[in-house]
Amino acid sequence: MCAMASPLDRIRVVLCATSHPGNIGATARAMQTMGLSQLVLVTPQRFPDADADAMAAGAGAILNAACVAASLDEALAGACLAIGFSARPREFAGTVLPVRAAMQEALRYAVSGDVALVFGTEMSGLSNAELSRCQVVATIPAVPDFGSLNLAAAVQVAAYELRVAAQGGTVWTAPAFAPATQEQIERLFEQGERALIAIDFLRPAQPKRLLPRLRRLFSRARLEKEEVNILRGILARIEERVQNGWRK
Amino acid sequence: MCAMASPLDRIRVVLCATSHPGNIGATARAMQTMGLSQLVLVTPQRFPDADADAMAAGAGAILNAACVAASLDEALAGACLAIGFSARPREFAGTVLPVRAAMQEALRYAVSGDVALVFGTEMSGLSNAELSRCQVVATIPAVPDFGSLNLAAAVQVAAYELRVAAQGGTVWTAPAFAPATQEQIERLFEQGERALIAIDFLRPAQPKRLLPRLRRLFSRARLEKEEVNILRGILARIEERVQNGWRK
Repeated sequence: MCAMASPLDRIRVVLCATSHPGNIGATARAMQTMGLSQLVLVTPQRFPDADADAMAAGAGAILNAACVAASLDEALAGACLAIGFSARPREFAGTVLPVRAAMQEALRYAVSGDVALVFGTEMSGLSNAELSRCQVVATIPAVPDFGSLNLAAAVQVAAYELRVAAQGGTVWTAPAFAPATQEQIERLFEQGERALIAIDFLRPAQPKRLLPRLRRLFSRARLEKEEVNILRGILARIEERVQNGWRK
Repeated sequence: MCAMASPLDRIRVVLCATSHPGNIGATARAMQTMGLSQLVLVTPQRFPDADADAMAAGAGAILNAACVAASLDEALAGACLAIGFSARPREFAGTVLPVRAAMQEALRYAVSGDVALVFGTEMSGLSNAELSRCQVVATIPAVPDFGSLNLAAAVQVAAYELRVAAQGGTVWTAPAFAPATQEQIERLFEQGERALIAIDFLRPAQPKRLLPRLRRLFSRARLEKEEVNILRGILARIEERVQNGWRK
């Protein structure tokens, strides 16, 4: 008899530049209590580490299987939805959801694709550059002037909401389309930048806020694979026209 | 002006015979993030303690104000409802509720009386004798064969559910931006169509599904005024290049 795969198996926890290895261990434990297993560490300050092992309690297997990534982009490879956690996503104008709704959304995507939950450093959370890689920001309701949960405590709340949602009896159906992966989207952005420079709309010396604005728009749209293909086709045509010269 | 009292002010957290002072500090922090302030420690092994202070981060005031009680009965004095937390309340014959429902119940009682949330030791949780002092047992959904949350993590989940319940009717709003009007969007689509024809990507005789697909993408994104302006700027540049001819 083979076990049914759970959508929870497709949800990874990504910790960015964690300072204290104890928090990595406590995160592994929080994940294990709720049935999550994939942990990705982006440039952790100390890992592996005895403090991580101590705080993991029975969740050593998650630590042992944890991947260390050199960048957030690497950590997001293959994911079709990245949800960043932020107490004050001031600069993020995409979809901001309370953690409960965000985890329901995560589960919906995880039926058919990989999902990443992204957490920043203990001191300052996610940077704007990191948030720009996320399509959704989840906020955990907290006291406004003391909103900073411990890192592993935030993971615990998120994992708890995932488990409640997974048990909900709701039948989770996949989105009726194929979401683009993070890499496909990044390649689109790279090509878009080249094309905007080629038509002399973007000046690398004075980029202003053009690219972040466009990134924000397309993150919000949660691009599908086919849409990325269409947009890249358009960009390729523009580049080709610029290359070959063209007069109507 | 005096602040309205919150029902959360009438809810105390009671930790029984805690072994590790770090967990007491982390509990204080978890409480503070969610607006709880009363902490009662029944025969803690070590308190006060530097590890507690370290883990409390900014929640030192809760630690300083914490009461140490000699027995659970003393800790429950004045409470009209005690809710015990247990992963496996086998011996408990009273009401067992998942933590979400239990915290809603706590809040209902806290409108008019004092409520205690009772947590057992790190190793074995609440004893049957301790559970017998509780009217309700709350369970946190977890993986059956690894159901043991860290103590402070369990407090965090409970306090989070309290806060969500207390905020009840809160309307979550994303940051306010100026959405584009329907007419602005239609003009964008018209210009986009012209530009796609100009670069010979769209062939009016064989339009296929290109325009409906793009329309769907941008509808989903819910364009803002400024984004429409940016996109129209890009399109205008493309049209201009096509018109004037251009060679890199």
